[in-house]
Amino acid sequence: MKDQVIPKATAKRLPLYYRYLKVLLDAGTEKVSSTELSEAIKVDSATIRRDFSYFGELGKRGYGYDVKSLLDFFSKTLSEDRLTNVVLVGVGNLGNALLKYGFHHNNNIRISAAFDVREDLVGRIVDGIPVYPMSEMAEQIKQQQIEIAIMAIPANSAQDTADLLIESGIKGIMNFTPVRLHTPADVQVQSVDLTNELQTLIYFLNHYTPSKEDKKG
Amino acid sequence: MKDQVIPKATAKRLPLYYRYLKVLLDAGTEKVSSTELSEAIKVDSATIRRDFSYFGELGKRGYGYDVKSLLDFFSKTLSEDRLTNVVLVGVGNLGNALLKYGFHHNNNIRISAAFDVREDLVGRIVDGIPVYPMSEMAEQIKQQQIEIAIMAIPANSAQDTADLLIESGIKGIMNFTPVRLHTPADVQVQSVDLTNELQTLIYFLNHYTPSKEDKKG
Repeated sequence: MKDQVIPKATAKRLPLYYRYLKVLLDAGTEKVSSTELSEAIKVDSATIRRDFSYFGELGKRGYGYDVKSLLDFFSKTLSEDRLTNVVLVGVGNLGNALLKYGFHHNNNIRISAAFDVREDLVGRIVDGIPVYPMSEMAEQIKQQQIEIAIMAIPANSAQDTADLLIESGIKGIMNFTPVRLHTPADVQVQSVDLTNELQTLIYFLNHYTPSKEDKKG
Repeated sequence: MKDQVIPKATAKRLPLYYRYLKVLLDAGTEKVSSTELSEAIKVDSATIRRDFSYFGELGKRGYGYDVKSLLDFFSKTLSEDRLTNVVLVGVGNLGNALLKYGFHHNNNIRISAAFDVREDLVGRIVDGIPVYPMSEMAEQIKQQQIEIAIMAIPANSAQDTADLLIESGIKGIMNFTPVRLHTPADVQVQSVDLTNELQTLIYFLNHYTPSKEDKKG
């Protein structure tokens, strides 16, 4: 499929479509109509049909949209052509794994600076990435004109750090803490709560798999 | 709020409610009606109202449900009273961070065994967790009667490993690879694609924040 220009207003809605379609996929739903999408994500169905018309062959009206095909298409569309630099706050176990994660391998994403409170880390270069003290965070973010931060820090400093990041010009936060951050309307937070993901899975299995109660006693 | 018995059929739907409500929260939606929920997650609205009636004060008909309150309630409900043992496959950078992540601190989740191909890791105890060779995976899972596995391995061995896990009795997989796994209907997969989460955030910001095009030239 060739690149084509998608209007900015349509592009804005892609992540929302994408995330809802992932929910549908997890629920085992294969087809979805524009009306169903409309109800689910509060976008009127005419807008959805127009948005989807930019995606070419995916937009088969009347049959419903194929969830997997849409997800594949969105996944490709979401990847950016130009390099995006992001910062990492917190080089503990998880932060360290994220430094080594290789976001840049197949994607134009690069962690260009990391920040930590630990004196044995600060001033060093870890996996090619300089680690600065927290006191230099605001300055580095401004100098490098970075708008996205990954937060892999303890929960108790999450809100304060988020406030400081936003003051420094950060507009998007990937939040690995379980804290629900309070942020201004123009700041987007993407939360990844690993405990919660695992809890949801466990809960689902405990209530979904064939009961073992008949073995009792 | 006191513990109360939630019927199994209701409990089964909680994770689905929970995940969809998180999408709504991220989209800035504060209230949702049972009709809207019904359309979104394909559960009829009478069932939703009955399900929600078990949650006591949250079920205010006519006003719509408060998204944040529901999420808080579900979050509490999803946490289990008894300990759940899980296995970890892959003790690389991410796997190592997950070993140290402390799922057990506030939650009844414990990684009881890890598996890896690396000979320098196998046979050792890392952060209190024994690391076994892959060849012992099936046996350990059966012996310990474990039903949940965390997969933090390279993408190219994801499907084969998933197949082996399922053969060994695993019913739930927390999948950190970007691979969309093919699994039987009774196996639940929870995917956490970190690159994708970051991509979605970047894409959103590039199309949402005030454009810098007027500075061009």
